[in-house]
Amino acid sequence: MTPLLKEIRHSPLLWLLVFVPVVFAAQKLSPEAHTLLFLLCVLAIVPLAALLSHATESVAAKTGDTVGGLLNATLGNLTELVIALAALRAGQHTLVKASIAGAIVTNTLFMLGASFLLGGLKHHVQEYNRASARLQAGLLFLATIALLIPSVASDADSMAGSAFTEKLSVGLAVLLIATYGLGLVFSLQTHREFFGVAKQTEPGEAPWRLGLALATLAGVTVLVALVSEVFVESVQQAAVAFGMTPAFVGFIVVALVGGAAEMTSAFSGARKNRLDLSVGIALGSASQIALFVAPVLVLLSYVIGPVPMNLQFWPGAVAMMLIATMTASLVTNSGRSAWFVGVLMLMVYLILAMTLYLLPPRLQ
Amino acid sequence: MTPLLKEIRHSPLLWLLVFVPVVFAAQKLSPEAHTLLFLLCVLAIVPLAALLSHATESVAAKTGDTVGGLLNATLGNLTELVIALAALRAGQHTLVKASIAGAIVTNTLFMLGASFLLGGLKHHVQEYNRASARLQAGLLFLATIALLIPSVASDADSMAGSAFTEKLSVGLAVLLIATYGLGLVFSLQTHREFFGVAKQTEPGEAPWRLGLALATLAGVTVLVALVSEVFVESVQQAAVAFGMTPAFVGFIVVALVGGAAEMTSAFSGARKNRLDLSVGIALGSASQIALFVAPVLVLLSYVIGPVPMNLQFWPGAVAMMLIATMTASLVTNSGRSAWFVGVLMLMVYLILAMTLYLLPPRLQ
Amino acid sequence: MTPLLKEIRHSPLLWLLVFVPVVFAAQKLSPEAHTLLFLLCVLAIVPLAALLSHATESVAAKTGDTVGGLLNATLGNLTELVIALAALRAGQHTLVKASIAGAIVTNTLFMLGASFLLGGLKHHVQEYNRASARLQAGLLFLATIALLIPSVASDADSMAGSAFTEKLSVGLAVLLIATYGLGLVFSLQTHREFFGVAKQTEPGEAPWRLGLALATLAGVTVLVALVSEVFVESVQQAAVAFGMTPAFVGFIVVALVGGAAEMTSAFSGARKNRLDLSVGIALGSASQIALFVAPVLVLLSYVIGPVPMNLQFWPGAVAMMLIATMTASLVTNSGRSAWFVGVLMLMVYLILAMTLYLLPPRLQ
Repeated sequence: MTPLLKEIRHSPLLWLLVFVPVVFAAQKLSPEAHTLLFLLCVLAIVPLAALLSHATESVAAKTGDTVGGLLNATLGNLTELVIALAALRAGQHTLVKASIAGAIVTNTLFMLGASFLLGGLKHHVQEYNRASARLQAGLLFLATIALLIPSVASDADSMAGSAFTEKLSVGLAVLLIATYGLGLVFSLQTHREFFGVAKQTEPGEAPWRLGLALATLAGVTVLVALVSEVFVESVQQAAVAFGMTPAFVGFIVVALVGGAAEMTSAFSGARKNRLDLSVGIALGSASQIALFVAPVLVLLSYVIGPVPMNLQFWPGAVAMMLIATMTASLVTNSGRSAWFVGVLMLMVYLILAMTLYLLPPRLQ
Repeated sequence: MTPLLKEIRHSPLLWLLVFVPVVFAAQKLSPEAHTLLFLLCVLAIVPLAALLSHATESVAAKTGDTVGGLLNATLGNLTELVIALAALRAGQHTLVKASIAGAIVTNTLFMLGASFLLGGLKHHVQEYNRASARLQAGLLFLATIALLIPSVASDADSMAGSAFTEKLSVGLAVLLIATYGLGLVFSLQTHREFFGVAKQTEPGEAPWRLGLALATLAGVTVLVALVSEVFVESVQQAAVAFGMTPAFVGFIVVALVGGAAEMTSAFSGARKNRLDLSVGIALGSASQIALFVAPVLVLLSYVIGPVPMNLQFWPGAVAMMLIATMTASLVTNSGRSAWFVGVLMLMVYLILAMTLYLLPPRLQ
Repeated sequence: MTPLLKEIRHSPLLWLLVFVPVVFAAQKLSPEAHTLLFLLCVLAIVPLAALLSHATESVAAKTGDTVGGLLNATLGNLTELVIALAALRAGQHTLVKASIAGAIVTNTLFMLGASFLLGGLKHHVQEYNRASARLQAGLLFLATIALLIPSVASDADSMAGSAFTEKLSVGLAVLLIATYGLGLVFSLQTHREFFGVAKQTEPGEAPWRLGLALATLAGVTVLVALVSEVFVESVQQAAVAFGMTPAFVGFIVVALVGGAAEMTSAFSGARKNRLDLSVGIALGSASQIALFVAPVLVLLSYVIGPVPMNLQFWPGAVAMMLIATMTASLVTNSGRSAWFVGVLMLMVYLILAMTLYLLPPRLQ
């Protein structure tokens, strides 16, 4: 266990792990203190996500490029998946969908925009691998089309979700997962020379032993799942206490909490002029949520949820995903970046966040 | 007549010509066997379209680059035009519009996507002429805007087509044809050095004599027209028998039948690493239908149809054309292709086709 | 005053200045002759705008690159701002918004398209600075998103503008102005080497002395303001007399009048193969109106207008701005141009203008 403890001692972020037991204690003692529980959960999830991410990378580093890439790609959004599963089990489909759409928008606009800005403030002009950015933007484009179809095609007055929407959602989920799989074959197998594997582990930082990494992966996943249940229960009431709309909470707050660990890596990559890493984390994470996490949740909802979940999103969420995808396509076209590109992306994000914050609940 | 017979003997596709007389016989004997008639028509139209295409190329080859290019561009979608005219004469505007929109979407997503996939499975990375692809994508973009305007601008509750929609449609038709003409001047005259004329005839394959080619052109057009009438009569009832929605039939089935001959050429070009040819056929065909066939049908509807046809499409069809155009713009931006690009385009097509297949009739 | 008189003697456009006093005389004599007053105002505003533009450049030339660039960027659309202020004071929000949207669309599609066409008819292929065009297209994209949000998010049946729309509009206005300011820092300060300052003054043409330039700036601004008031009063009734819809007048006529002076410069730049100048004027002007003029009007409406103005546009105007922005993004991607690119952009503009011209008033 020494490497794990050493890791924790050297990384101030992981000191937040102390909040994990605090969450469970607080929930036992005052289960109605939703605002407090919400804040404790946020503080507990962030270091757990960081640990998960490090464990995944360590397993990946031990298993060779292809399997490792596959693991990284598949478990990279484990935190988001586990939080969404907790909401799915609680039947909170609106929260699940808002957190999916929010994660796509936040990763694309906020994580990438802030990386461009932070990197650009230090480096005059930065370059990154266009092929990789384009692949991710293309996947994201496909996923956005898949996610907008049910909203566009469905009857406006039968929002409850007809048989048509359910069949369509299952079909779309299967197509998305198939595309995701083929995309992995493309980038990890047949055309990997175009996608120089950006290693996330720092040079000089020793990866953990496989046993420790696997044990951490398993144990931390369980902890995230337990904390997520408290989080999902408390988030809506805490939002009311803070004067935030439900749409803002699902879209912005949950997405920022779920992605905090990845953001740390993306921002630090940008500062070190390794923008490929930042673009890979941000767009890769967004496209993974759209093509893997979202459809997996739809299919799992037939097994674990009280009612099946479809892919019909609130039209505003669809519009925001479309805006995020188009911004990513336009921006990553050139393979170069400067600080103002980051400003533009963050402004788009701010516009969306402000709209959600001000939006009267009856319009959501 | 020897070259024609030789051509038929060497090309298994043309053996299907035997179904042309079978269609007429079957219609005489059992005019109510719609499903059978539909299948026979499909089998008869495909070889006729291939013959038309070869005859057009032969005439084009005899008449020099510019006139030849003009002929190829103008008669390239003769099959689609003749089928649509048959539907127009029968007053089936919904079928005409569905087949126009479907041909644009099918040529852009399916024909181009399958070309990229088939070519990419054989060749690691393929390059093609960006200037040409961009011109076609630009034309397609313009046409999509022209076709979405009447749906967006029209009053939602007067779908029957007001005087406004009719005047607008005629104006748009004139602008589209003018743009198409100027585009030909650009690509065949003033800037032809950017558009290396991709010859569709194989090296070593002798083009027909002019007389034979012209006679074939005339005779086969008449045959296509006659078969098309049977096809248009039978297609809707056959669709019901197969459990397909009318939207699916118009969009997918008619478009695939009408474009079968061109697809053969596009796919064979891609396998031979002549991707310029495939891109030219697919996007050229799509932009020609949007900028030439569709507006010509609108103007002709004032002469031959029972009632004038406008350019107001079903909003779902507009959305699909927009998706197809945006996909084409994004994809052709780089001038390079690999198999996964084809997969992405085919997935977008599959998503649209699946949606149309599942769509309850009341939403169409 | 000699340089001013010399300028007027040598520039036939400025002879139109004689119409300035004629406007005021005519308004005194027959205040109800709206059609006549409208025509006189158009003839008077065009030379005034040209003078304003020249005075701004002269001040800019005296004050060094950065301050000069700032002045040019800030006062470049003074005419449009003054006209819009007159309409704002008259409480004509619909006209203000139509002229904002129309100026964005007209500058992007008509001014840029006609520059490409006029330049392309003389020069086979023209190149221009992609970095600059992309920055402007990016700013325009951001602004379009900001302007579409209130229309999309607002309740359809409360078009009057709820408290939500007002708060959102003020927030968006602040974000747009902040982005505009940061964009100036980027293009004039930190990364100016990418944006070779295209000087608008001709070589050999002496700029005016600072005193004369400042005096002209002040005096002409007052004249434009006075003429604009007559213009705003007469334009709607004149439109009815000409059989034009209000949407057409606001979108097309006001935009063409307000931008006439800039168009002269843009077209002359294109003919002289200095396409950077044309692209800079056209897109720079469009993005300035979207990111500076429009939000300033919103904020000023709290001070000078009878009621505050929001940023909720007619959905058709939003669609047209979106089409213009997407066209600009697609077209400026390559940094090269030929005459047909201009034709495509002008056709898109014609399609929009024709739609507005035919649109029944109840749909606007």
